Amino acid sequence: MTGDISEKSSLQCAQPLMYTEERENESFKQRLTEQKQSEESVRVCSPPWRKFFLWHLGEDWVLLILLGIIPATMSWAMDFGIEFFLHSTIWLYEKAHSNVFLQYLAWVSIPVVLISFAAGFTYLVGPQAAGSGIPEMKAIAKGVDVKDHLSLNTLVAKIVGLTCALGSGMPLGKESPFVHIGGICAAQLSRFAAFLGKVKQSESQTVELVISGCAVGLACCFGSPAGGVLYSVEVASTFFMVRNYWKGFFAASISAFVFRFLPVCSGSFETITPLFKTWFRQDHPYELMELLSFCVLGILSGLAGALFVFINGVMVRFIRSQRPISQFLVKTRVLYPALVTLVIATLTFPPGFGQFMAGELTQKETLYALFDNYTWSKHLQEEHFDPSDHSVAWKHPHVNVFGTLAISFIMKFFMSAVAISMPVPCGAFVPAFVIGAYLGRLVGEVAAVVLPEGIHHNGTIFTPVPGSYAVAGAAAMSGAATHTVSTALIVFELTGQINYIFPLILSVIVANIVAQTLQPSLYDCLIRIRKLPYPTELTWGHHEGPSIQVEDFMVKDVKYITLTSTYKDLHKILFARQFKSLPLVKSAESMILLGSIECVQLRALLSQHLSRARRLEYLRDCAQNERKHTSTPTSEDGNQKDIQEVSAGGFSTTHSFSSAPVKRPPVRGFQDSDITLKSLLCSHSIVEGLEDDADVEDTMTKKEILEWEEQQLEDKVNFNDCKIDPASIQLLERTSLQKVHSILTLMSLDQLYVTSVGKLIGVVSRRELRKAFEGSVKIRGPITHPPMSTFRESKTRCRNTNTPEATELHSLLGSESSLDQPAESEEK
Amino acid sequence: MTGDISEKSSLQCAQPLMYTEERENESFKQRLTEQKQSEESVRVCSPPWRKFFLWHLGEDWVLLILLGIIPATMSWAMDFGIEFFLHSTIWLYEKAHSNVFLQYLAWVSIPVVLISFAAGFTYLVGPQAAGSGIPEMKAIAKGVDVKDHLSLNTLVAKIVGLTCALGSGMPLGKESPFVHIGGICAAQLSRFAAFLGKVKQSESQTVELVISGCAVGLACCFGSPAGGVLYSVEVASTFFMVRNYWKGFFAASISAFVFRFLPVCSGSFETITPLFKTWFRQDHPYELMELLSFCVLGILSGLAGALFVFINGVMVRFIRSQRPISQFLVKTRVLYPALVTLVIATLTFPPGFGQFMAGELTQKETLYALFDNYTWSKHLQEEHFDPSDHSVAWKHPHVNVFGTLAISFIMKFFMSAVAISMPVPCGAFVPAFVIGAYLGRLVGEVAAVVLPEGIHHNGTIFTPVPGSYAVAGAAAMSGAATHTVSTALIVFELTGQINYIFPLILSVIVANIVAQTLQPSLYDCLIRIRKLPYPTELTWGHHEGPSIQVEDFMVKDVKYITLTSTYKDLHKILFARQFKSLPLVKSAESMILLGSIECVQLRALLSQHLSRARRLEYLRDCAQNERKHTSTPTSEDGNQKDIQEVSAGGFSTTHSFSSAPVKRPPVRGFQDSDITLKSLLCSHSIVEGLEDDADVEDTMTKKEILEWEEQQLEDKVNFNDCKIDPASIQLLERTSLQKVHSILTLMSLDQLYVTSVGKLIGVVSRRELRKAFEGSVKIRGPITHPPMSTFRESKTRCRNTNTPEATELHSLLGSESSLDQPAESEEK
Repeated sequence: MTGDISEKSSLQCAQPLMYTEERENESFKQRLTEQKQSEESVRVCSPPWRKFFLWHLGEDWVLLILLGIIPATMSWAMDFGIEFFLHSTIWLYEKAHSNVFLQYLAWVSIPVVLISFAAGFTYLVGPQAAGSGIPEMKAIAKGVDVKDHLSLNTLVAKIVGLTCALGSGMPLGKESPFVHIGGICAAQLSRFAAFLGKVKQSESQTVELVISGCAVGLACCFGSPAGGVLYSVEVASTFFMVRNYWKGFFAASISAFVFRFLPVCSGSFETITPLFKTWFRQDHPYELMELLSFCVLGILSGLAGALFVFINGVMVRFIRSQRPISQFLVKTRVLYPALVTLVIATLTFPPGFGQFMAGELTQKETLYALFDNYTWSKHLQEEHFDPSDHSVAWKHPHVNVFGTLAISFIMKFFMSAVAISMPVPCGAFVPAFVIGAYLGRLVGEVAAVVLPEGIHHNGTIFTPVPGSYAVAGAAAMSGAATHTVSTALIVFELTGQINYIFPLILSVIVANIVAQTLQPSLYDCLIRIRKLPYPTELTWGHHEGPSIQVEDFMVKDVKYITLTSTYKDLHKILFARQFKSLPLVKSAESMILLGSIECVQLRALLSQHLSRARRLEYLRDCAQNERKHTSTPTSEDGNQKDIQEVSAGGFSTTHSFSSAPVKRPPVRGFQDSDITLKSLLCSHSIVEGLEDDADVEDTMTKKEILEWEEQQLEDKVNFNDCKIDPASIQLLERTSLQKVHSILTLMSLDQLYVTSVGKLIGVVSRRELRKAFEGSVKIRGPITHPPMSTFRESKTRCRNTNTPEATELHSLLGSESSLDQPAESEEK
Repeated sequence: MTGDISEKSSLQCAQPLMYTEERENESFKQRLTEQKQSEESVRVCSPPWRKFFLWHLGEDWVLLILLGIIPATMSWAMDFGIEFFLHSTIWLYEKAHSNVFLQYLAWVSIPVVLISFAAGFTYLVGPQAAGSGIPEMKAIAKGVDVKDHLSLNTLVAKIVGLTCALGSGMPLGKESPFVHIGGICAAQLSRFAAFLGKVKQSESQTVELVISGCAVGLACCFGSPAGGVLYSVEVASTFFMVRNYWKGFFAASISAFVFRFLPVCSGSFETITPLFKTWFRQDHPYELMELLSFCVLGILSGLAGALFVFINGVMVRFIRSQRPISQFLVKTRVLYPALVTLVIATLTFPPGFGQFMAGELTQKETLYALFDNYTWSKHLQEEHFDPSDHSVAWKHPHVNVFGTLAISFIMKFFMSAVAISMPVPCGAFVPAFVIGAYLGRLVGEVAAVVLPEGIHHNGTIFTPVPGSYAVAGAAAMSGAATHTVSTALIVFELTGQINYIFPLILSVIVANIVAQTLQPSLYDCLIRIRKLPYPTELTWGHHEGPSIQVEDFMVKDVKYITLTSTYKDLHKILFARQFKSLPLVKSAESMILLGSIECVQLRALLSQHLSRARRLEYLRDCAQNERKHTSTPTSEDGNQKDIQEVSAGGFSTTHSFSSAPVKRPPVRGFQDSDITLKSLLCSHSIVEGLEDDADVEDTMTKKEILEWEEQQLEDKVNFNDCKIDPASIQLLERTSLQKVHSILTLMSLDQLYVTSVGKLIGVVSRRELRKAFEGSVKIRGPITHPPMSTFRESKTRCRNTNTPEATELHSLLGSESSLDQPAESEEK
């Protein structure tokens, strides 16, 4: 398309390959041009700024810095939008103070409209954006590609939908969708880098960047770099490359910093502070006896977390069930979220039931209040309160603080569990966090009344700090619902205080043990309900049902090259489909796999064989031969004219050099007559390098060149200078799906060859694997394991891993004997 | 040996296998009894308390709790010893205040004696205990077994040596040896669990526990669970199983808690506090402009860290060099550490040069002082100081605080770099930490003078806090020396304050970038110098030199069973060596690998074939045949008598049933006449299960049983009921060492079969792999990579991973053609 294509020979060089397969002409040419276009877009990058990007943007650190900055900026901007919507609701509500009914209308209308818009927008722009997105990210982190999940329209839908959903004031979370947003940003950056000039990153590199994106997503919501990284480790779930840890830490630190720095720039804050800064005493944070009450809190949080997951599961299953009512709700799409919002907004209506549960507070204000330094059972008996003191919302003339806290806890619990089942972008982490904070505050208030005060040698009296229980409860409950322990680190970074480390970790671990015993994690639960293609872990997945074997899903029609292939064969295969590498077998009969060769090399081989240098050498040899034989001069002028006619008239219908000329109709829509096979096949550097040493004049006409090229294509390929990857890991046809997945993922490979007794019988790439997972999930449903299951299943494991993928001999011999048949045919 | 062995048949059943190989008799019997003993020791566990252990102790969580408690208790007890020694020195020094020379003697004598004792004790008890042990732990975490490194005597040497070494007051560290101690405890606990009754853990499970042990080791030195876990992640260096993260977190939390809880129990503290608690202001920890000075601190720390590694490397290389002086020092062993101690103690002598560098303070006191809340340039101008205020040590009448700090920094720097090269158990982490704290304090003091004060809206004046720089410097320098970023988390947990998170992470990341560009990490440096067998990472190790291939180190003489094997063959192979599983090939000629069978199964097969049930069935069949043919009655009485004679006289020399009787001498030392082949071969449950249904009277004599067993052994093995592992991952002979290692480690396998065109040609287990690593290290030296190298090497990587393990065709064809020969022999 552009000028840097060599003009020496014409398009017709592709003809020798065409005239026997006339019907394939069109598609072949199309392929040629497509091939060229794609190569162009990757390789050609003339302006210097583009060269700069080519050089630096592909490097990891630039990508990581961008990955750190972009989601953080989004997160900060989104907070503005959310605040605006929340304040609008409050403003309208306060304007309508004359009439309770008007107030009610004001209170419910904006949330219902916002949620309906969010649901509609999400459905129309990117239906994949609904929900938290973490179940899908877990699957993606394991190497499964969930369709459309990392696309740009999902990103748009997620951002707009999330802003509206959170602006409605429903008990929804921001951070799980942000983990998803971080992942999308990572994937899009990776694509962008590839587009700008770098050679495309391998799939596993992209997955690594996406995992870093998850860390970034959490870090830029909470300002917690270390917590974000650990969370991404826990999400990556089976194994974790440590080089990724470095990248994640780097990007997450930048992201958290930018997220906290931007409010300082905009003047909202004077300096960088934690998001929910606490002011608990530092000198003697807790009595040792309080560890027991923290342990009780852990157990309660674990139970509550498991119940939360259960209720959410029931709601999601109800929506997805086949009953008429749920089908109606699904069909109308906007009706279900609008209904849920209406109910929740009605319940929180401050003059109504909301007066018992601090309905007028936003999630942020609720957390500020719950984490404060007062003991409410005493503090709320005071008369006057600071305007910034939100704890007054729990003060009720008829119900004491334990009552209002308990009501708030129970109501928030059920409201959140229902709310997160709405088909809008929303997370469950923050709702669980808030519920946990309620529970913790409740336990803390009780502890402050029940536990004795500690009096110490200098006469100071230390009472339990209910706020610290709220912090521990938040970490424990969110940890229990998501089966993670990194929540402990997240709250340290979120509150800016780490001196409660032991009681907090105790609560989180206890809550995790309880919750993991009772229920799968929130994300695993959704993975199961949605039947996402989720690879079972190899380590403890052996004994569950019959496993799918590689022979069931491998590609059996493998394209290969043999030691006796001609360049023509090579050419055919290379343009038949886009491969990254091709297997080399000994012969088409024996099919014994020797190794694999990258297509780049094969293309170079082909182009070198048809190169100008070789042609000139051929001319030189011809000239020498001529001199020896002193033969008669050729009619070059006539030939030249002949060819010019051909090139002017598009495709000629007769060939003077062909002994058996074949009629070919002129083909339309093929204007780029400058494309040569060679220029299509090889990168420019190789061509230029080869065309430098021209000491013989290129006297060949285009027709002669064509003739010569056709001759050359009949040669056998000389693989001597080729680097051949010996394909040193080969699968047998009985390898299980899990093993194939592990090998492909762990070794960062793109494809694997399946052999039987040395014979190539199939090939498996990530695509086939993905399909197989989807298939297996359809049959059995995804199998997930709580992270702690290694503790409990250690005995079962010992018993079962003794016979991994064991098969009965007869089945083995059956397949073996059937495989002997090609062996016999080989001997013929 | 015990009574639960069936007494029906005698030892002589083993005879049919013996009488052709008389010379093998002795060894065979030995093997039989050894086999029995080992099975006994594992399986028989009569007392109920043992059963309890068998049931619960093998479970991971019990092991992890023990792993948490034991090193923490050790750490706490060791602190007592160290304090005692340190106080003795000070006490003696203060007693001798009348005479400076006496004071000097008192000051140097105890350290020199202690270090000499530590060096001598370490050399005699466990020479592997010298040094930090982390380089070895890194190698172990990658699956390489470093000899004797996890043994009990190493543990003893490490504990005693470390207590003495740290008690001497030299600038040495406690935590790196404790990472090693944690690892040893984990390995020993794993062994202990296996001894108490659990089936032995696989090697990879032990390695996982050892990595958890590393986390525990750090956690119980610093009271930092999360930091410890992340540190162990960074030490595990290539990939990390997430199930291990859970275990590590659990054990490390327990450990850190116990370590901080024990001092409370013993009354040293009133409550659990961080080890080096800081009291920096919380409301406005730092000005944004200070991020720049923290960045400068990061750069300086990075440079200092790299220089520290370099100097330590020079010292270690000097000691290991072949010069006469170093050989003399190595030979005398105690001389070198004693000399180094003498020099360092002389330098720190408080009335001497020590007055410029706070020589009288211990490491702990130094850190307390450096992390304090004062700005020394102002504070030290005061007249009166608190007795607990150690910062007064840097007050000198003639030199200002910048001078004393600079002198202290430089002296400590070189003293530490030299001291950690002594052959005593000691770590470099704390020395680097202290040096970093000095550097940070120095930068902080300068910043406090240079940077303008921040005045804020409520009129408060905020000045830079030099103590916070000291904390950041400590994290940055120790991070730079060890190439880790988890030091940031460690200091948060160590100081109990997290509000400096952004400047601190900034310093650590900058320091890491600088240091990783200049030098390998301290541990990688030692790995290279000591030439430890360290597996190169697969991901970026391709392009470095020719790789070793699996055919170079695999075991070529593979024991196998064929489809046509008889039970006799099976019996021979099973007792030839202890295998875990055996490969099954199609036939001895073709050697086509069908799969592998576990030896447990093969033994069960064999014992079932010789079982009483089958014998009774045989008798029943015989009886039926007899009834049909109404043949003459057999002389059973005579036979019975015959056999009784045989069993009474030990081994008979003639066999009435043998057509060609072979003379066999009576064999001595073989008293257990109750052992039958069957009872040896199978576990009791199987035997009992099979012997239940006896409806035919067992009328066979011992002789007949023998005869019958011998007959049965000639049968072909029936593999129909056998579970066969299809050995679905096979290696080709050209697979590189790195790939083999990755597959074995990542897939937690114990051995892999090497095939060529389907034919079994070798087997590789971890043992061979280990040897190969040792061999490769001898040739090339270990290759280590800084964790951040993925950033910088991304370009190189892109270019080089295109041709992983590529080989030239001719070499490939060469080996291929040589491999064709067995294929041809198959066709014959």
